[in-house]
Amino acid sequence: MSSERVWTAALAVIGDEILSGRTQDRNVAQLALWLNDHGIRLAEVRIVPDDMDKIGETVNELRAKHDYLFTTGGIGPTHDDITVDAIAKAFGVPATVHPEALKILQDYYRDRPGGLTESRLRMARTPEGAELLRNPSSGAPGIRMNNVYIMAGVPHIAASMLAALTGKLEGGRPVVSITVGARAPESDVADLLRETEEANPGVAIGSYPFFKDGRYGSNFVIRSEDENLARSTGDQLSQRLREAGFEPVDGGI
Amino acid sequence: MSSERVWTAALAVIGDEILSGRTQDRNVAQLALWLNDHGIRLAEVRIVPDDMDKIGETVNELRAKHDYLFTTGGIGPTHDDITVDAIAKAFGVPATVHPEALKILQDYYRDRPGGLTESRLRMARTPEGAELLRNPSSGAPGIRMNNVYIMAGVPHIAASMLAALTGKLEGGRPVVSITVGARAPESDVADLLRETEEANPGVAIGSYPFFKDGRYGSNFVIRSEDENLARSTGDQLSQRLREAGFEPVDGGI
Repeated sequence: MSSERVWTAALAVIGDEILSGRTQDRNVAQLALWLNDHGIRLAEVRIVPDDMDKIGETVNELRAKHDYLFTTGGIGPTHDDITVDAIAKAFGVPATVHPEALKILQDYYRDRPGGLTESRLRMARTPEGAELLRNPSSGAPGIRMNNVYIMAGVPHIAASMLAALTGKLEGGRPVVSITVGARAPESDVADLLRETEEANPGVAIGSYPFFKDGRYGSNFVIRSEDENLARSTGDQLSQRLREAGFEPVDGGI
Repeated sequence: MSSERVWTAALAVIGDEILSGRTQDRNVAQLALWLNDHGIRLAEVRIVPDDMDKIGETVNELRAKHDYLFTTGGIGPTHDDITVDAIAKAFGVPATVHPEALKILQDYYRDRPGGLTESRLRMARTPEGAELLRNPSSGAPGIRMNNVYIMAGVPHIAASMLAALTGKLEGGRPVVSITVGARAPESDVADLLRETEEANPGVAIGSYPFFKDGRYGSNFVIRSEDENLARSTGDQLSQRLREAGFEPVDGGI
């Protein structure tokens, strides 16, 4: 059991397209994996519609509860992109054109058809006092406002904003996860899992059933901030599965 | 603008595996589409860890705010499946073995290896006073407790629980959505979109950029409870895109 400080983050996914089922979110998993590498736990996610009040309320609640809040979505050039305005309002500051963002967009659109239109200029606006998150893959930058990281909704653009942030956030020890799979229905090994978890304080074991090639099976995921403990627990679990007549598969099935 | 009552639902996705990035959620989009057909709007989603207090708090907040609350995840046979206990506690009732669920599991496991073990028996427990949601695709049923619908996390099992509920929930008029695509960067048509939305009260137009086959484009999604209005707005938008030099694609790209 670690007594180190646990760093947590929340994610607010902003967008009617996710709540209507039109678009499959990819940012939850992408951000979660990135945070794991930084020793920061994704503690909760909220998916909210393109609604000023709802965004503002959610941002104010989550930024107070966690070390970091990330948002995805709603920072493009169109009328339904209201994230910057909503977050500025949540902080009680105006949304204004950021001089550096303006310069980035001027450079980016100088030789592109249409140039820097009024709509595109919207992407230079930030809550007053914010910093930019560089985004090598498209013109418009992300935004940091205190502990709030405002990112694009398009997954590959969000990914490039995360890449630019890599190594720059303070966190704890990364969580190590070890997966052991077996052609074992999880209900056959429930006791064995619980006992293995109880015998190894400081690990959490999750059980994830699947149905594949016409047969049931499960992957068992051991998570801990202590890599040695995670590995030795994985070895114990493999051993116990074998004794119970199930062939373990390191790394999962 | 419709003055009809708007029916709303929330979804609580329960599971460390989603927040760790190990598992890609599929239930948000699946439930959203199902709700659309029932004239119920998915108004918010929260993804929470396998934690009794966090689940209970989330369930009590969301069930009070919406007509319906759905939950996915945490109703299997293993030690990390704590959704039923957490929701029973949130309602202030015990979790007890439901006689019908017991019978279903006895029948299901009668001829299966291992039989109805103590771990599997966990899946017969419900918050006291709950009803079952039949699930043709595996033994264990889902659960309805007042306006809370407790479903499996495995997407195909959740789907079969939803299939059994189809047509049984009260809602309003389904939202119709019309998609028009074009090889138009959204920033080139932002004004045109805003004006089209403003000229057609009762529709919402979303703009979703993509990058495909080496070129940028966007899909524009028109949503309304009024099918005729959605269609005529779609026609207007196609016409305006064409006038602006972009070839519209009905149904999107």
